[in-house]
Amino acid sequence: MAVKLIDKHAVDFIDKTLYSEVAADAAKAYKTVYDRSGAGSDFLGWLDLPEKYDRDEYVRVKAAAEKIKQSCDVFIVIGIGGSYLGARAAVEFVKSPLYNNLKKGTPDIYFAGKDINSAYMNELLMLCKDRDVCINVISKSGTTTEPSIAFRVFRELLEKKYGEKGACGRIFVTTDKSRGKLKALADEKGYETFTVPDDIGGRYSVLTSVGLLPIAVAGIDVDAMMRGAADAMACYGKGAEDNDCVKYATLRNCMYRGGRGIEILVTYDPALAMFNEWWKQLYGESEGKDNKGLYPSSVVFSSDLHSMGQYIQQGTRNIFETVMNIKADDSPVVIPDDPQNVDGMNFVSKKTLHYINENAFNATLLAHVDGQVPNVILELRDRSAYTFGWLVYFFELACAISGYTLGVNPFDQPGVESYKKNMYALLGKPGYEEERKALLERLG
Amino acid sequence: MAVKLIDKHAVDFIDKTLYSEVAADAAKAYKTVYDRSGAGSDFLGWLDLPEKYDRDEYVRVKAAAEKIKQSCDVFIVIGIGGSYLGARAAVEFVKSPLYNNLKKGTPDIYFAGKDINSAYMNELLMLCKDRDVCINVISKSGTTTEPSIAFRVFRELLEKKYGEKGACGRIFVTTDKSRGKLKALADEKGYETFTVPDDIGGRYSVLTSVGLLPIAVAGIDVDAMMRGAADAMACYGKGAEDNDCVKYATLRNCMYRGGRGIEILVTYDPALAMFNEWWKQLYGESEGKDNKGLYPSSVVFSSDLHSMGQYIQQGTRNIFETVMNIKADDSPVVIPDDPQNVDGMNFVSKKTLHYINENAFNATLLAHVDGQVPNVILELRDRSAYTFGWLVYFFELACAISGYTLGVNPFDQPGVESYKKNMYALLGKPGYEEERKALLERLG
Repeated sequence: MAVKLIDKHAVDFIDKTLYSEVAADAAKAYKTVYDRSGAGSDFLGWLDLPEKYDRDEYVRVKAAAEKIKQSCDVFIVIGIGGSYLGARAAVEFVKSPLYNNLKKGTPDIYFAGKDINSAYMNELLMLCKDRDVCINVISKSGTTTEPSIAFRVFRELLEKKYGEKGACGRIFVTTDKSRGKLKALADEKGYETFTVPDDIGGRYSVLTSVGLLPIAVAGIDVDAMMRGAADAMACYGKGAEDNDCVKYATLRNCMYRGGRGIEILVTYDPALAMFNEWWKQLYGESEGKDNKGLYPSSVVFSSDLHSMGQYIQQGTRNIFETVMNIKADDSPVVIPDDPQNVDGMNFVSKKTLHYINENAFNATLLAHVDGQVPNVILELRDRSAYTFGWLVYFFELACAISGYTLGVNPFDQPGVESYKKNMYALLGKPGYEEERKALLERLG
Repeated sequence: MAVKLIDKHAVDFIDKTLYSEVAADAAKAYKTVYDRSGAGSDFLGWLDLPEKYDRDEYVRVKAAAEKIKQSCDVFIVIGIGGSYLGARAAVEFVKSPLYNNLKKGTPDIYFAGKDINSAYMNELLMLCKDRDVCINVISKSGTTTEPSIAFRVFRELLEKKYGEKGACGRIFVTTDKSRGKLKALADEKGYETFTVPDDIGGRYSVLTSVGLLPIAVAGIDVDAMMRGAADAMACYGKGAEDNDCVKYATLRNCMYRGGRGIEILVTYDPALAMFNEWWKQLYGESEGKDNKGLYPSSVVFSSDLHSMGQYIQQGTRNIFETVMNIKADDSPVVIPDDPQNVDGMNFVSKKTLHYINENAFNATLLAHVDGQVPNVILELRDRSAYTFGWLVYFFELACAISGYTLGVNPFDQPGVESYKKNMYALLGKPGYEEERKALLERLG
């Protein structure tokens, strides 16, 4: 097992009757997922994806990644939400947050269309100057504002740089398999296309072509990643009993019902900061509805022990932590001895940084538990592609179970439309004239 | 005014009697700050710092920054918490999160000693290979574990690379003005030293030498930054009436007393993501004690509208937002027209990205207010060094007022010691033998 849940620093905080009740609900929810009988069950494609993915498309994705590696210095990935977070989380998890500064033999990777910021866009354009560029635009509908605008800018850049025909070989489109204007454009222009499956929502899509292409371009072993997910699928598919996904869903729903409204996902490795962000979308968007849901938050220790640490130790007692602890030390660094012992730290001379970090983890665990903060531990074997695939599957399945346990549809996101509708109205999209007038009046 | 507070989308959510009560408390707290009569008043040095800073040291900091710029390719800043977040926030706010990829004529800047991660440390060492390096170690006591370990590693690197004498000209120490082993070492070796003032805690220290040296190395106009802070000091020092700091403290304490336990700091510019982190330390560490305090969280829109947006729109109603909206568009990008109108977005052809972002801000504001989430707005003039200085002062003063309004000491952080003590014990620091035994037993 690449991921292992340890609950002994959490269960003592939970009333035993409550735990039994919630555990029964979670076991029922597990059955609901596999029966495909719950709300949103049209979006369960991720459940057997690690075995049932389209092998032909998978081979095409890997070939496209090789082509991209060979033909550009800068690879711009255009997408927002689930079309952005998964790939970026994978690159930083398996490679590094400093990937662009460290990598050799693969292109720089930058993410666009994840916001509407002119300074950032200008910086990306500067980084493309005098360098060869490929782009991957990822959008199911092809009409989401943020990626649409970015695609306009970068398509223009490529067509000016390489001509329409040259640009064609450098534009890769991940979209609906048959419908939509982006698919139609791609067919007309001859862009290579990949599929956003109909039965997998954005936040569950990292192991589809949506995530696979950028992840493969970064030089990550996607075969190992899919194998990790497949092994997780086999492991957690055996039943609700003694199942870490069910346990995690049970624990967090106990915390929620017990009045702890905030879950803090903790890592001791800055390379997992973007994974934390991916997790926040998965859980926040799946559960934050019907005026319900744990508030998902995250920290990177030991850094944030010197910022959020004070609050966690002694602030309002409405929190619990889920801590990812990585066991392997893939790049040992030994602490030099200092004959003068300036910092008084000679008791750790010749020890590895990993040893200190492991002790920081244990020290903090006990300090926070003493401060009345329950700690759920997730032991991760390492930062390999295999473990990433496993961990993604663990959190996806646990999220579906947790959502059903909470009593919501974990696969929709009706609230995301509200700002979009207002934005269309304010920007003067045809058909929104009435709404526009009303909104402008409110803004005064 | 470089920063302006707008409360009209927040006050309607607050009971009028409650508002009056809290406003009276906040006005009293304002007086407590200026009277220097409250808890922790020994740490009010930041209050008149923008006028009363040490001019000689300031000139030395600027000279050292010039020397560093000329003598290295990579500048490693070693510090944790307040010795890390402020400088990084400034570099990203005024320059860019992509500073290391974009800058010309100034060194790469990397931050070390902010965690205990071996992979990250190895990456930093790789980035220093075959390049000239200077370091700035920032630690009041010189004995904090994380920066101490990093300083050992980088001091060794410099001494191997340049010899002890050569290294001496490349090591800059920011520490206590007279006490401590780090100060003693610096004096013995002849390292240039700068002061962490006695009366300013880490999280309030960005405008002291702690932040100034790295900020100046990044090529940021520190004179303008200090002028912004000085103007803010003059503006908010005139009294509690019609004072945005008092208003902000009042609003957030009303939210807290009214049962909203989570404050989300929002930006629409990815360059402010690290500023959000700086803010989280300032407020989390100042208020999170005595089982009290708003939980500080943050998002970057519009990106996170596609992750946390669903929760904010429809999840548990225990949140409010404080939204920083930047008015200036310093690098306009115009959206290309698309004759085929593939994305159906031709209604924004030829508009600027900034115009779309401004409308995303207004659209989201109204959507979230309709979703029963109060919104406090902070209008920022631009992303200049001047505005950064002003904004830092605004948040610092407001934090002190808010902490007193809440009834806590906003200047201590007793909870941070708990994990440190456990860590010393687990690592076998002499004098912690008893604690070590007890902790090991608990870990089993």
